[in-house]
Amino acid sequence: MDMAKDAARLVGVARGDIVESAHRGHVAIWHRDEGLVASWGDPARRILPRSAIKMIQALPLVESGAADAAGLTPAQLALACASHQGAALHTGMVEAWLDSIGRAEGDLRCGAHWPYDEAAEHALIRAGGKPGQRHNNCSGKHTGFLTLSRHLGAGPEYLEIDHPVQRAVRDALAEVSGEAIEDYAIDGCSAPNFALSLSGFARALAEFACAKDVGGVRGAAMGRLVQAMAAHPDCVAGEGRACTRLMRAMGGRAAIKTGAEGVFAAIIPERRLGIAVKIEDGATRASEAVITRLLIGAGVLDAEHPEAVAFSHGPVRNWRGIETGHVEVAGDIRDWRA
Amino acid sequence: MDMAKDAARLVGVARGDIVESAHRGHVAIWHRDEGLVASWGDPARRILPRSAIKMIQALPLVESGAADAAGLTPAQLALACASHQGAALHTGMVEAWLDSIGRAEGDLRCGAHWPYDEAAEHALIRAGGKPGQRHNNCSGKHTGFLTLSRHLGAGPEYLEIDHPVQRAVRDALAEVSGEAIEDYAIDGCSAPNFALSLSGFARALAEFACAKDVGGVRGAAMGRLVQAMAAHPDCVAGEGRACTRLMRAMGGRAAIKTGAEGVFAAIIPERRLGIAVKIEDGATRASEAVITRLLIGAGVLDAEHPEAVAFSHGPVRNWRGIETGHVEVAGDIRDWRA
Repeated sequence: MDMAKDAARLVGVARGDIVESAHRGHVAIWHRDEGLVASWGDPARRILPRSAIKMIQALPLVESGAADAAGLTPAQLALACASHQGAALHTGMVEAWLDSIGRAEGDLRCGAHWPYDEAAEHALIRAGGKPGQRHNNCSGKHTGFLTLSRHLGAGPEYLEIDHPVQRAVRDALAEVSGEAIEDYAIDGCSAPNFALSLSGFARALAEFACAKDVGGVRGAAMGRLVQAMAAHPDCVAGEGRACTRLMRAMGGRAAIKTGAEGVFAAIIPERRLGIAVKIEDGATRASEAVITRLLIGAGVLDAEHPEAVAFSHGPVRNWRGIETGHVEVAGDIRDWRA
Repeated sequence: MDMAKDAARLVGVARGDIVESAHRGHVAIWHRDEGLVASWGDPARRILPRSAIKMIQALPLVESGAADAAGLTPAQLALACASHQGAALHTGMVEAWLDSIGRAEGDLRCGAHWPYDEAAEHALIRAGGKPGQRHNNCSGKHTGFLTLSRHLGAGPEYLEIDHPVQRAVRDALAEVSGEAIEDYAIDGCSAPNFALSLSGFARALAEFACAKDVGGVRGAAMGRLVQAMAAHPDCVAGEGRACTRLMRAMGGRAAIKTGAEGVFAAIIPERRLGIAVKIEDGATRASEAVITRLLIGAGVLDAEHPEAVAFSHGPVRNWRGIETGHVEVAGDIRDWRA
């Protein structure tokens, strides 16, 4: 199986005048009423959506009534969809949330890593501390899993593939993507990550974009999650990160979410669009550049906004702050308009 | 200019049973007597060799007599060719070397970044310190540049493109690669990085591999640098890094050097070979996997050695230490034999 054969050249990385590296990938843009309206590479590419799927992993938390039973706020729902920086904001929220549901850090199953937020990392080192599971960028999602598990009266091993929490996630994903969900792999945070096609993922994102049309319990849950993400960009990622910076720049007009290995998802309610990006080689710099250009093309991000320029073009600077190069997105991506 | 069009699929990255990402790239293998003996992708691909070129950037330091005038040891020559971790070993050597030539950290022009070595980083944070230029992974190369500059009686701005140090580097590179060197870009450490073809780079590396045949001042300098790198793997990179771990595993049978954006170089004296790798998308995990397989194929690295397995296959583990996937190098790379 040659996964790379249909990937399209999407991004060049120049150093000075020389194109030093290049990234290939796949894009699927799904309109809820019109279906697949644009694509690059192979929209049928089966992907692991990684953390870009978190709003779907959070659907059962809201649909089941667990979120309301626990009195979760929109900021907490955003954190359930987050790959956060482990800043004091995030770990404080996780600790309070765990406490509120009678659970503790030791009940998490995401594993520990040093916080990505430099201030938090340095404070922890200076205090002679060690990273905990609360610092894991996925700890909000896992606290959401624990909240749902408690609500369902299910057992503590909420990451097992047949646990009611993961069965609910799988069912929700199958329904919103319109695909049979069979394969999965284990994510960095130890949760099952289900495989689906890029276009199926984009279709699911378009459902989120049109939550009112979906209606019912599902539509209400989708709408709350999209609004929570768009209203709390600081909870979805953190300072310095593309999700946070670009959602701030768009002022709530779209909800976006990055995933490891070059995945990026966008939900654009006013255009009724879902966009899914997968860079073949897994490079985040490329998925960020492509999604930024597509948000511009969708008319929800000002091309002249400094954050739009930063993520779609650069410049790239070195250790002395000297401009050494830039990123260049392929012309047909730049020319796309919703 | 579509730099990617001739790149070959070299590496797959699997998560569970699913090939999640893939890397394309170029390889040139040059035998000093037989020329280009194997290649993948486009061996004519013009590349920026980045830090993989450091043994050539260090050639004028030795050839000029500056190294002997300053009484440099083999470990110092290895450090001049290094992208080091900023561990105490490395910064201590840089400080002592600068002092020995009447220069100080402020004379460096590489810029500052936090040490990559975790123990050094944490010690610096706990002490309330800030990173200095000595911590820059290129500070050994820059101290070599300062040593040459002093020997030549040249000015302090040793990174300027017309400075005698950079002119000497450019001339050496042209001679050992057999190519006209015209273009350059600015590296992460602010030094000019000259563009050349991948095969030209491999040819230069094969010259290093056959230093005795090259003879004269140049051959002697090449031989000393290769022996210095192979004998001091800890100075060339540091704990945890591919260069150090694989050179240790080979017990001095090859000198290897990584570079940013997916470049890797190998000098294999007993096979009279130079090998140059460029991953199109710039991924280090792919350049490491490919060079490891080629070192195995060249007969200088035991395929069963734990370091060979780690870099050519994995497993990849997550935050809880669970095996989540592995790396797979293309069969025609795995099948190559010198």
